[in-house]
Amino acid sequence: MAVNLSAPAPGSLHPVAGLELGTARAHIRKPGRRDVLVARFAPGATAAGVFTRNRFCAAPVRACREHLASSAGAVRALVVNTGNANAGTGEQGLADARRTCEALAARLGCRADQVLPFSTGVILEHLPMDRLLAGLPDAVADLAPAHWAEAAEAIMTTDTVPKAASRRATIAGREVTVTGIAKGAGMIRPNMATMLSFVATDAAVPQALLQRWVREAADASFNRVTVDGDTSTNDSFVLVATGAGALRVDDDASPGAAELRATITDVARTLAQAIVRDGEGATKFISVVVERAASADEAAAVAYAIAHSPLVKTAFFASDPNLGRILCAIGYAGIDDLDVDRLELYLDDVRVASAGGRDPAYREEDGQRVMKQPEITVRTVLNRGTASTTVWTCDFSHDYVSINADYRS
Amino acid sequence: MAVNLSAPAPGSLHPVAGLELGTARAHIRKPGRRDVLVARFAPGATAAGVFTRNRFCAAPVRACREHLASSAGAVRALVVNTGNANAGTGEQGLADARRTCEALAARLGCRADQVLPFSTGVILEHLPMDRLLAGLPDAVADLAPAHWAEAAEAIMTTDTVPKAASRRATIAGREVTVTGIAKGAGMIRPNMATMLSFVATDAAVPQALLQRWVREAADASFNRVTVDGDTSTNDSFVLVATGAGALRVDDDASPGAAELRATITDVARTLAQAIVRDGEGATKFISVVVERAASADEAAAVAYAIAHSPLVKTAFFASDPNLGRILCAIGYAGIDDLDVDRLELYLDDVRVASAGGRDPAYREEDGQRVMKQPEITVRTVLNRGTASTTVWTCDFSHDYVSINADYRS
Repeated sequence: MAVNLSAPAPGSLHPVAGLELGTARAHIRKPGRRDVLVARFAPGATAAGVFTRNRFCAAPVRACREHLASSAGAVRALVVNTGNANAGTGEQGLADARRTCEALAARLGCRADQVLPFSTGVILEHLPMDRLLAGLPDAVADLAPAHWAEAAEAIMTTDTVPKAASRRATIAGREVTVTGIAKGAGMIRPNMATMLSFVATDAAVPQALLQRWVREAADASFNRVTVDGDTSTNDSFVLVATGAGALRVDDDASPGAAELRATITDVARTLAQAIVRDGEGATKFISVVVERAASADEAAAVAYAIAHSPLVKTAFFASDPNLGRILCAIGYAGIDDLDVDRLELYLDDVRVASAGGRDPAYREEDGQRVMKQPEITVRTVLNRGTASTTVWTCDFSHDYVSINADYRS
Repeated sequence: MAVNLSAPAPGSLHPVAGLELGTARAHIRKPGRRDVLVARFAPGATAAGVFTRNRFCAAPVRACREHLASSAGAVRALVVNTGNANAGTGEQGLADARRTCEALAARLGCRADQVLPFSTGVILEHLPMDRLLAGLPDAVADLAPAHWAEAAEAIMTTDTVPKAASRRATIAGREVTVTGIAKGAGMIRPNMATMLSFVATDAAVPQALLQRWVREAADASFNRVTVDGDTSTNDSFVLVATGAGALRVDDDASPGAAELRATITDVARTLAQAIVRDGEGATKFISVVVERAASADEAAAVAYAIAHSPLVKTAFFASDPNLGRILCAIGYAGIDDLDVDRLELYLDDVRVASAGGRDPAYREEDGQRVMKQPEITVRTVLNRGTASTTVWTCDFSHDYVSINADYRS
């Protein structure tokens, strides 16, 4: 059902020098599928991350924050399991996450706080530690620079398509690679980052700079998508710079810094949009644009009111230009002094509403034509200021209910 | 599909002295069904209302506010149409609402600002004024005190069951009647009041007191329910005191005032719960209780995070005790300093989570047993303070998508 999204073509994912990936089938929840991923970074690599703001954050998220702090970002590996989120698992959950890092560190010859752990899957159940630990040797034995496609597959849960993006560019006269993977299809309204995403470059970037960039990239990508408004317990977005390539960046003024940052953000945005394209039950990819708002917060409030409304989302599923539902959502977005007579609403280039009501030139068949497309832009011009934003979302279909009513069974 | 809700039994709706109701079939949207309601009040009646906070509020809501102000609540009639919400209709919509009031006022011999207009149905289309005005004579000819059941039917849209409640009590030695009707099944997250509800008593109550009471009753009833989180453009809750009965109340200290106010709130709460029981596609009626919060706002934020989560609502539909989804919703409710180790989560009397994870005594079969019931209480004890709240909601089923993907077709 994914909207204009297919698995990465063979050879399209460029290896990142200084980084190897290995996967294993550990039977965490379902037999026979890749469900453990290990990534190993060359000595000298730096890592930075942003994580969920959910107060019920998962144990591995707590461990990641601790390890990034105590290792100052000098990370040597990460380990991911699917099938179990290790969230809502109390102190035992934290002990399980730490034990996983210790086991991998012993095998790779580094410190436990140089390993970042990640989990995704069912909440409120303890990790099957015996099976997870038993899977690590296979994953380590599988480590190779070319295994990006397998890595993207190993972190999937309800995803129907593996998500990856890769760019190779010459920046400041040096060849640079940026490659990343992501997973997520439901419980998606990231508040920092998405469910899970890892992006790596072979450039050398100091950790403090990398931490600023990862936040900026998240704000322009994963923090701008929503499937169902449910901010997950496990959202994590980690950016790694191996330093094994030719480009070295010291600060924002370094030659190539701006271009590298833009390339990283481009990869992150592509991955974030891939999550929406593969949103649970999605049949449409919708860009919600809000322009001329009084502030960035106001623009976001209006965009999310539209993007979260079940009535708007079911109308998109039905290809029904029932546009009053969009106006209704704008009206309850919380702008107390909104003058509805001044705003304009567009579906792609069709002006639908103006002067507080249906635009005089609007014809139902024009709205219908746009609504039938698989990709639609809803644009609200508030005419109150200069701020603007874009949020990406999908429609709300029968399959969303089916997927989520049956997820554990 | 309504959950433990049936149409009012014949004879169960007590007439309110000083109030008559008449309906008509005006073909506003669909032929053959009652779609216009007129209510006439005796001279001396007072009315008060609360209305949607949606900034895209409908034209009749604007007219109601104006008329209540200019007539000081000395209202003589109300007129309701279904099939068209007269919302997102700009200046012409307001003119249409006023013209409807003028036409009815001329027929009843009162001023136009003594008539309150209401509309419900599709947004962004103009009222078919010719058919609406042509229906008024039939509705006026039908006026009678006993027509409450027909009135409840005439205001339905996607409702599957007409909603009404009635109480007769002896208060301060006088017999008093309170009877009300309501409609609404989708676009329900009232922020002042529900889609439409009218409650009347034959007691005499000054308008200023009535205005305070209507707000309090709304806060304890319609402002505590949600179906899909969509605050409608047309929410209106109007309370009428005809003064034609035996009880007269002058202020909160008058004999019987507290009891009358409680009876009015009881009727409003019954009607609000009826809206949730008949929520679009509902198969479960869920009471979301939050206790020991630091503030009322915090309690409401947690309750609505749970009640609005599509993942929680689909789990209820599936009777699946996938309780991590509830913890996840609590975690993103916006309490920055929430200590998840201190909270407790209960399904009815089954303690599900404590100490930041699954309760040691919790057994899946106990959760399963509760989830299979048609009525469920989800109780979160935050252990942060003394505030508490209850919000009523329903589950999220395939039929919600079907109803809203097909609503206009």
